[in-house]
Amino acid sequence: MAACEAGIRYEGRKDLMLIELCEGSRVAGVFTKSKTASAPVDWCREALASNKGARALIVNSGNANAFTGMRGRQAVEMTADAVSANTGCHPGEVFIASTGVIGEPLDVSTFDGCLKSLKGELKSDGWQDAAEAIMTTDTFPKLSTVDFALAGQTYTLNGMAKGAGMIAPDMATMLSFMFTDAPIGRDVLQAALMEAVDLSFNSITIDGDTSTSDTVLLFATGGSEQGESIDDPKDPRGDAFRDALKGLTRDLAQAIVKDGEGLSKFVTIHVEGAETTEAARIIALSIGNSPLVKTAIAGEDPNWGRVVMAVGKSGEAADRDALSIWFGDQLVAQNGEISSDYLEADAANYMKNTEITLKVDVGVGTAGATIWTCDLTHDYISINADYRS
Amino acid sequence: MAACEAGIRYEGRKDLMLIELCEGSRVAGVFTKSKTASAPVDWCREALASNKGARALIVNSGNANAFTGMRGRQAVEMTADAVSANTGCHPGEVFIASTGVIGEPLDVSTFDGCLKSLKGELKSDGWQDAAEAIMTTDTFPKLSTVDFALAGQTYTLNGMAKGAGMIAPDMATMLSFMFTDAPIGRDVLQAALMEAVDLSFNSITIDGDTSTSDTVLLFATGGSEQGESIDDPKDPRGDAFRDALKGLTRDLAQAIVKDGEGLSKFVTIHVEGAETTEAARIIALSIGNSPLVKTAIAGEDPNWGRVVMAVGKSGEAADRDALSIWFGDQLVAQNGEISSDYLEADAANYMKNTEITLKVDVGVGTAGATIWTCDLTHDYISINADYRS
Repeated sequence: MAACEAGIRYEGRKDLMLIELCEGSRVAGVFTKSKTASAPVDWCREALASNKGARALIVNSGNANAFTGMRGRQAVEMTADAVSANTGCHPGEVFIASTGVIGEPLDVSTFDGCLKSLKGELKSDGWQDAAEAIMTTDTFPKLSTVDFALAGQTYTLNGMAKGAGMIAPDMATMLSFMFTDAPIGRDVLQAALMEAVDLSFNSITIDGDTSTSDTVLLFATGGSEQGESIDDPKDPRGDAFRDALKGLTRDLAQAIVKDGEGLSKFVTIHVEGAETTEAARIIALSIGNSPLVKTAIAGEDPNWGRVVMAVGKSGEAADRDALSIWFGDQLVAQNGEISSDYLEADAANYMKNTEITLKVDVGVGTAGATIWTCDLTHDYISINADYRS
Repeated sequence: MAACEAGIRYEGRKDLMLIELCEGSRVAGVFTKSKTASAPVDWCREALASNKGARALIVNSGNANAFTGMRGRQAVEMTADAVSANTGCHPGEVFIASTGVIGEPLDVSTFDGCLKSLKGELKSDGWQDAAEAIMTTDTFPKLSTVDFALAGQTYTLNGMAKGAGMIAPDMATMLSFMFTDAPIGRDVLQAALMEAVDLSFNSITIDGDTSTSDTVLLFATGGSEQGESIDDPKDPRGDAFRDALKGLTRDLAQAIVKDGEGLSKFVTIHVEGAETTEAARIIALSIGNSPLVKTAIAGEDPNWGRVVMAVGKSGEAADRDALSIWFGDQLVAQNGEISSDYLEADAANYMKNTEITLKVDVGVGTAGATIWTCDLTHDYISINADYRS
């Protein structure tokens, strides 16, 4: 892997990175559900569907190549051709992501020259450079690594992510790229990725907005020469890998929230007693996305009335008269009304922490879910009300 | 009608109002979809279903009587009994609404005494007092009136509303009460109300949050002695009434947005070219609820990239490559990319207005919808991050 300054939007910072993958690498992907997805997202979906495998990943920051019409499509094709020419792989084996401003044409004419230089600088431990090159409004690069054992052998799972608004389309979007040297087959890879993404990147929210460019890719470079590969999603030998992937994606997802635009507090929301896991997550996200809950947390106000409101507006089943709410360890409300043990002073004191946990039991079932979010502050307004610069 | 100071939460302001309705008055209602609806909402739903008609409306501000468990239910029953005792109507003919803080028991022990005084002060033109008594964080009372003709006779439709956050559960929620002297039957009243509410109160958003207490009630006091009443929703003689109601609800809905917490700009969003009217409204609300669109408007930034993002996240059908966007009269984007005629300086200049209109054609059909919203400012954060006082 290697990164360079392609001068896409800002001077003096790396904004283009290339990762070359060994022959036989498999890939899994999860993408934005937006109806206005970017040209690189369209490209990756097609490359994934063609099942050719992956030989290269190229990512630029500064321009999302989204809402760029025919020119956007041409830009991804030229990018894939340039990577193909410089690395010898097929263009269909090239995965592409772009993040940054929406609606401005992406000039890729410099990419071929950049790739000629990058080709000579590729190294196997350039994680920091690569993670920095994909940053936009992020204030720190997001990297995580975990080891796991498979059939007596130790493998590694490495990942990077970027994102700070969820999303701030001018200069952000959520991207994550993960890599393992374990011999995992494509179907196992895709199933494990979808399960892990639901519990991590789909369980965080900063402002409830959804990017045109959200892309999560997982590559497995372990060739079959290293031993029999795991090709059946039901094969229990895959458990260690799936657990490692859940841990890695949770780490990276939490890092995105901790870099949330303007945040002053990191918030964990557990919902229990829901009808289904999906209902629990929808209720938790309804709480986590509510501007009134988020501003109350910013104001260090244990305003559980707003939590009740957010449960109610989610549309999912909840029993108002069986609802219980905890702020940290403190039981605030029980059986649909304020707890007789509730002490406002204790709750207000708890809200001064920089990490806050809310728990809600909605009283209709046994399913639960956890999401992570942050508060909504004056700084968020300042960051996003600034005229694009 | 009459209003008084019941001392529910604040000193020195009217916070309880009573409206007595003549015998034979019909009523229609639309309520919050929240799963944690307040005790008065439950009460009104039952009263409406029992089809007894309406003889009185009693509304307090300062306390929403929401999430108050069994005590909340008892409070509405005691309120209805007190009104019944003082006006001679059946408790089931009493409609009740409460707005204000959530989760604190509402003390109604003073209501009987208040009602004894109010009874002697009832007058037919106390609109201003009544509208002020239902205010919470509102900065002005919201009243509107319209005349219309039915079978050669002129009738009046009067309405009031309150709401400033949509909602701020501490001290707000959306309420509206409307009255006509026209002889309109119950079924016609309910159908007309639901149609008008979709185009007005369901087409505004301040922060995307939904109250536990939202209540819209429409009363028709015109007795049958004034002429044959209109009882068939398909009767074309009802058109003038339906049109008048649409105008009145739109006026009141826009007044709520214009009193939006912390707003600096009033925003109209038209969506065209959608598959259905409902799809158009969902897309328009997705734009109007997006924190990134709202902060861009606050920053006077014609950031159409965020509009594209909000269209994409709505989940409704839209053709990215046929999308067109206008800011005011200026065509910003066309056929999925920036318009060749777009002049950033002109668009930036337009954004300095205090009333902004965005139009989006999503290119997949012929249906359209219009919603009204406001921007998201530092003042919204300040208002809602303040500790409850």
